[in-house]
Amino acid sequence: MTAATPQQPKKILVVSAHPEPRSLNAVLTGSAVDHLRTAGHEVRVSDLYAMKWKATVDADDFPDHAADQRLRVMAASQQATLAGRLAPDIAAEQEKVRWADAVILQFPMWWFSVPAMLKGWMDRVFTSGFGYGPAVPPPYSEGALAGRRALVSVTIGARESAFSERGIHGRLADVLHPLQHGLFWFTGMTPLEPFAVYGANDISQEQVAAAKREFTQRLDGLFTDEPVPFRSLDGGDYGRDMRLLPGVEAPGTGGLDIHLRPDADARPDTGIRPGGPTRLRG
Amino acid sequence: MTAATPQQPKKILVVSAHPEPRSLNAVLTGSAVDHLRTAGHEVRVSDLYAMKWKATVDADDFPDHAADQRLRVMAASQQATLAGRLAPDIAAEQEKVRWADAVILQFPMWWFSVPAMLKGWMDRVFTSGFGYGPAVPPPYSEGALAGRRALVSVTIGARESAFSERGIHGRLADVLHPLQHGLFWFTGMTPLEPFAVYGANDISQEQVAAAKREFTQRLDGLFTDEPVPFRSLDGGDYGRDMRLLPGVEAPGTGGLDIHLRPDADARPDTGIRPGGPTRLRG
Repeated sequence: MTAATPQQPKKILVVSAHPEPRSLNAVLTGSAVDHLRTAGHEVRVSDLYAMKWKATVDADDFPDHAADQRLRVMAASQQATLAGRLAPDIAAEQEKVRWADAVILQFPMWWFSVPAMLKGWMDRVFTSGFGYGPAVPPPYSEGALAGRRALVSVTIGARESAFSERGIHGRLADVLHPLQHGLFWFTGMTPLEPFAVYGANDISQEQVAAAKREFTQRLDGLFTDEPVPFRSLDGGDYGRDMRLLPGVEAPGTGGLDIHLRPDADARPDTGIRPGGPTRLRG
Repeated sequence: MTAATPQQPKKILVVSAHPEPRSLNAVLTGSAVDHLRTAGHEVRVSDLYAMKWKATVDADDFPDHAADQRLRVMAASQQATLAGRLAPDIAAEQEKVRWADAVILQFPMWWFSVPAMLKGWMDRVFTSGFGYGPAVPPPYSEGALAGRRALVSVTIGARESAFSERGIHGRLADVLHPLQHGLFWFTGMTPLEPFAVYGANDISQEQVAAAKREFTQRLDGLFTDEPVPFRSLDGGDYGRDMRLLPGVEAPGTGGLDIHLRPDADARPDTGIRPGGPTRLRG
């Protein structure tokens, strides 16, 4: 397989979180790695279960922290980050994220979020001084990790309609807001619309093949697709109290969509659009 | 301390997730336990860090799973649940949740969600056959864990305005939707409006004392406050495709609020209302 449009070789980090090496998530991860490498990109993989990644933040993350002192997590993590004294497994992941032009997260949706294993990667790697915070070096004034694209690839047991515009679980975009806007946007990264495979607990070989094809199309657009049009913090839309100023959104815009730029296309209710969320019914 | 209104003694499970026994989270947990016990309730605590809770789902959770077989997480967890063959630490937590009339989750917001430690409690404890799924016994037709109240108590580093109606991070209710609607509502529990302490990284002793007072007021309303008015799955508002039927929401209602019953009060933008979200500026 080769990319539809030739791209400049880029550096891509794939982070995957599933305990089973024969899972759909492992298949999608493997497929992505093969496709991206064939297209000439440099790819590194953090297979968190295979790495036996430590999922929980504790004092061991900060070797200089004195055992008898109260652990203030944000302060300790910022201090350790700036001193270059984080636990080696954290430092190694930070180096990978810093190296990457794009980060892909591959995971099954468990309880409407990432598995604890992946949450632990987020909690431990994106320290103050690395992912955000006043101590982030000046070149990153628009966000510590500016310039990096971010793509979520998620498998979901439920059917697509349950996560659609009026779906009972909320729109996928809203359910993933803590990740897309909370982690990616907040640290300066550029999130794309997520890639989702629905009905993932009972999926046929044909559907797996279709999912792989759709995923590779999304990978071909990793550096060219329109990202989610979140507003900029520095764009004049927000007040000093961190609230959106009155009247900057288009009339009738509600919910979390007020944080999207009004010049961008509205999110579609159904149907596939180029670069938009992929829907595969299980 | 005694409750403002005498209540029937109830059973309450407090689940806390912070690595530091001297943290604000530990103070709030201890304060809640003392207050609830003084009010005559029976309280059990799962202090996940102190328990060294295993945060990640893997094959060890299902002792009967054959090592050479592909691990299908949902199927394996349902089978183990129905056979009474889950790992003992999971079974023990399920027994506590089943025992409880109310569950309180106490945690710091990390990356706009629960810490990985608590996510791992959600991932591992709320198995198919326990928290949801076709195999849930008939008395629980409105949700496996119906009849139990659920209260989030969260400490947040940011200031309150950033999580308010037009706040840059999204409303707290929307950010917590995967937990409030995803976990609690989906399993049949009755979530209350969350209790939040903002500015938690730089909080004075006076503010801690105020937070404890406000928290105990919320605890006094644990069984009497109006819950979040989520619509019922069986109430006729949703179609068979799991989408909200057209026109059932009040005009002008948008975002995730379409999943609230229109007869209930709208969520307030600012100010404290009885049983509403508590706001403490840091």
